[in-house]
Amino acid sequence: MHTQQPWPNGARIAVLLAIHFDAETLWTSRDPANWERPGTLSMGTYGGKVGVPNVLSVLQEYKLKSTFFVPGWTAEKYVDRMEAILAAGHEVAHHGYSHQWIDPKFPEREREELERGLSVLKSRYGVKPSGYASPAGETSPNMMELLQEHGFTYDATLMDQIDPYRTVLKDGSLGPVELPWHWNIDDACYSLFSRAQPRPIFPNSQIFEIWSEEFTEIYSKGGFFHLVLHPQVIGRPVRIALLRRMLEFILSHQGVWVATGDEIARTWLQANPERREPYQIG
Amino acid sequence: MHTQQPWPNGARIAVLLAIHFDAETLWTSRDPANWERPGTLSMGTYGGKVGVPNVLSVLQEYKLKSTFFVPGWTAEKYVDRMEAILAAGHEVAHHGYSHQWIDPKFPEREREELERGLSVLKSRYGVKPSGYASPAGETSPNMMELLQEHGFTYDATLMDQIDPYRTVLKDGSLGPVELPWHWNIDDACYSLFSRAQPRPIFPNSQIFEIWSEEFTEIYSKGGFFHLVLHPQVIGRPVRIALLRRMLEFILSHQGVWVATGDEIARTWLQANPERREPYQIG
Amino acid sequence: MHTQQPWPNGARIAVLLAIHFDAETLWTSRDPANWERPGTLSMGTYGGKVGVPNVLSVLQEYKLKSTFFVPGWTAEKYVDRMEAILAAGHEVAHHGYSHQWIDPKFPEREREELERGLSVLKSRYGVKPSGYASPAGETSPNMMELLQEHGFTYDATLMDQIDPYRTVLKDGSLGPVELPWHWNIDDACYSLFSRAQPRPIFPNSQIFEIWSEEFTEIYSKGGFFHLVLHPQVIGRPVRIALLRRMLEFILSHQGVWVATGDEIARTWLQANPERREPYQIG
Amino acid sequence: MHTQQPWPNGARIAVLLAIHFDAETLWTSRDPANWERPGTLSMGTYGGKVGVPNVLSVLQEYKLKSTFFVPGWTAEKYVDRMEAILAAGHEVAHHGYSHQWIDPKFPEREREELERGLSVLKSRYGVKPSGYASPAGETSPNMMELLQEHGFTYDATLMDQIDPYRTVLKDGSLGPVELPWHWNIDDACYSLFSRAQPRPIFPNSQIFEIWSEEFTEIYSKGGFFHLVLHPQVIGRPVRIALLRRMLEFILSHQGVWVATGDEIARTWLQANPERREPYQIG
Repeated sequence: MHTQQPWPNGARIAVLLAIHFDAETLWTSRDPANWERPGTLSMGTYGGKVGVPNVLSVLQEYKLKSTFFVPGWTAEKYVDRMEAILAAGHEVAHHGYSHQWIDPKFPEREREELERGLSVLKSRYGVKPSGYASPAGETSPNMMELLQEHGFTYDATLMDQIDPYRTVLKDGSLGPVELPWHWNIDDACYSLFSRAQPRPIFPNSQIFEIWSEEFTEIYSKGGFFHLVLHPQVIGRPVRIALLRRMLEFILSHQGVWVATGDEIARTWLQANPERREPYQIG
Repeated sequence: MHTQQPWPNGARIAVLLAIHFDAETLWTSRDPANWERPGTLSMGTYGGKVGVPNVLSVLQEYKLKSTFFVPGWTAEKYVDRMEAILAAGHEVAHHGYSHQWIDPKFPEREREELERGLSVLKSRYGVKPSGYASPAGETSPNMMELLQEHGFTYDATLMDQIDPYRTVLKDGSLGPVELPWHWNIDDACYSLFSRAQPRPIFPNSQIFEIWSEEFTEIYSKGGFFHLVLHPQVIGRPVRIALLRRMLEFILSHQGVWVATGDEIARTWLQANPERREPYQIG
Repeated sequence: MHTQQPWPNGARIAVLLAIHFDAETLWTSRDPANWERPGTLSMGTYGGKVGVPNVLSVLQEYKLKSTFFVPGWTAEKYVDRMEAILAAGHEVAHHGYSHQWIDPKFPEREREELERGLSVLKSRYGVKPSGYASPAGETSPNMMELLQEHGFTYDATLMDQIDPYRTVLKDGSLGPVELPWHWNIDDACYSLFSRAQPRPIFPNSQIFEIWSEEFTEIYSKGGFFHLVLHPQVIGRPVRIALLRRMLEFILSHQGVWVATGDEIARTWLQANPERREPYQIG
Repeated sequence: MHTQQPWPNGARIAVLLAIHFDAETLWTSRDPANWERPGTLSMGTYGGKVGVPNVLSVLQEYKLKSTFFVPGWTAEKYVDRMEAILAAGHEVAHHGYSHQWIDPKFPEREREELERGLSVLKSRYGVKPSGYASPAGETSPNMMELLQEHGFTYDATLMDQIDPYRTVLKDGSLGPVELPWHWNIDDACYSLFSRAQPRPIFPNSQIFEIWSEEFTEIYSKGGFFHLVLHPQVIGRPVRIALLRRMLEFILSHQGVWVATGDEIARTWLQANPERREPYQIG
């Protein structure tokens, strides 16, 4: 039997569809030389031009709300897409300014990226983001403190749990709620080929097998399922078929609550105001 | 329902079988030291000796026309193969001279590669190519201007769209038609193992699953499907079986127009003389 | 027909479920810079926070005993988990102190890692380990001598056999029993993706096919099956389903003896007190 | 319909089971530092200790003859295994002395490796090899001349054809018969994981699909099928099941001639004494 969950209407599992709308910054943060490589960049541009409309169309088809994590650079370039995302009622969350990977040798860059991203979302779209996902799944204790300082409700970067939990800052005080994820349920691991990094490309049936079995096991106990999707990956025609298949699989279960990161984090927090994890990272 | 398409006879989807006849240049452009490695080079030679005849034979079996993108070096070496390609009525397009990867630090090399390739195709085969595919999926704003200067109708290098579109040059004027592709529908991602770059080798059923689901999704809306094939990969016995399977799958659909890049680009251009894309690359 | 085996009750195959409880040390031994990367580290923390309880729960469900190979660092951090492992009656064996990879240029580090690990297991848990598995499948002649000097019954590091055998030290005398393994039957080869080392992630059906066919072939002759599992890999929801499936497959055979490394090594040794292998390594 | 083939008894396809008995040299030729890594080396030792007996047993079960390509170092160490191979009537061919990869900057090493290997095979086993396979699929024009100078009948290194053909030396004279292969039908591409080079490990069903479809396509026209196997890979329990499955598949066809490299090369040569290939490599 599944354990008691904090989700509304007795839901057994909360599902976050986290759309990482990196566009070109996915490539330029890997290697700044990619700014001079239109071929490589064009994979990112696809995310903005075609991927986001494709994903929005599927979400509308299934009447689902999701969270778009958007670097400031992308928000500045893809104004139409941002307006379409917001008009459809999705949450917009923070994903850095230039998708720069955190380097612990340069903590001042963390503040710069965070504040520049905040400024774009606020000034152009009137959005004060509730959540943050750090680029490429890496973060720092300093970044966690910055999130708390700026009043973020949740972070969506770490992989040390399945269920949400409360982070603890260096001084021992409580930080943002963590909404954990894992590479297993991220589309980029299975399909993000490039000349410089030729990752293998897998068929939908294999990706679906992994995602659906992860979902099934979590569902059996109740909990949280955090699927990470990139419009430049999941927005390709072949992967739109995968997205539909996965959403139909999820929605075929009873007691599923598909919600935004903000809704999930706040709901969890209300039910667990003081819960602490047994082990810290590192 | 699918949207209105510009293709002849009410066709719903245009299909380009883009044969990248790199031969040895695939390997020497990765690493010039490969000129001294007959084992590695022999994979490229297979493309010319065995792969091209195998592919031509399948195309003839299904009465299909395709476009062969050929580096000048390859055209100079494989004269018999070039004559067989042209005699069978296929289009020959430009693919550089030595398959050299574009390095933005050396723009003058781009002109040299382009003009040397043009010269070989013209002087030996009387071909003035209408289309160009840049080696390894990378290009530059300078190369796009060179293509326009030399009167190319189309480029087949970028990955930011599914449907054809009109490129815009640095000065804002219109450039060649772009016929976009993607790594997903390129045979080399699934089977091009080498000692120095040991990519995984996938079975036909998995490659077919990816290619056919990409086709199916595009077909459902109508559009353009651009399959990239290398004689040294698809011309292996095991992959000839995949090529037949994929062609039979494509041809089992109604409203499929298999055509050359030139036919597709000109047809699209006639229907969309002034259409511009919403977002540029980078 | 299978050959006569030394296992109790006429068992045909001995099965060792070797749980490598590396936690964060898996990552810090690959690259010490990972100490400053909470995102990467969090995959290891998952092993301690969630993976170990998940694995213990499945082992209890099937009433099986296994051997946990634990680096000293991990044993110091995850006290609750260690106590739960010991309370459930599993064997705890040695896996270095910091999971440091052996570098033959620094033999003195081998003694330091071994003795520091021994000290943690002894002083905190009263455990004098009978077995040792070297981190990342690498060892040295010096380490083999150290194991003999400290009275270890078995080593579980090499891949040159299927069945257990007796190692021979540099001076020709007999060393610990070897319990051989292989990458094929290690979960980390199929699912341990990271940003810096993006290994492909495979679905359960493919991993199960490889593991079960390896088991079946060994079972047909009788012998030893050594499955290597990491709580941070096999403890993910999707892989818990694989673990159950594999255990059910194993237990569906007659004459299966699932035992700890210590039980298997001592049983083998009693039956083969003086057996030597025909070929040494290298 | 298949074309006329030179094989005996009207056979449609000649099959070479090429066993590359590298043992430890597979690893030490990749990186000499592996001489100090017993864990890595133990994968190679498995090939000699367990893999070769396993492979010999399967070949005997199906009453098949094959060719073992053996580096001199391996022939010196695994005397029992060499005697078993020869006693069972298999061909022993040349595979270098230390499996050293050819570096065109050091042509004198090529002669040294060749002559040292010849000397071991002659002095210890009375074998004057008829064939040679160059380590890791790489060779040089100089090596081809050395093979001709030493009276080799065939080389088994290049990938530019399916059928056997006659090599041409730098001076235009005819060299050894080439028995071409390809990575697609080599077991090491699918299963040779190591810590330093973590190649993906594939299940038997996928490898069988690739190998059997390559065979089927060649069989449909008639020709030559050259399967490359390594005792340390195919001799693992899981892969012994693959070997049996593949042999049963091959032998279920009519008109299959499984023969040694020497038999195949001489038979082909008799039928095609002066045939030259249209294109040279490079």
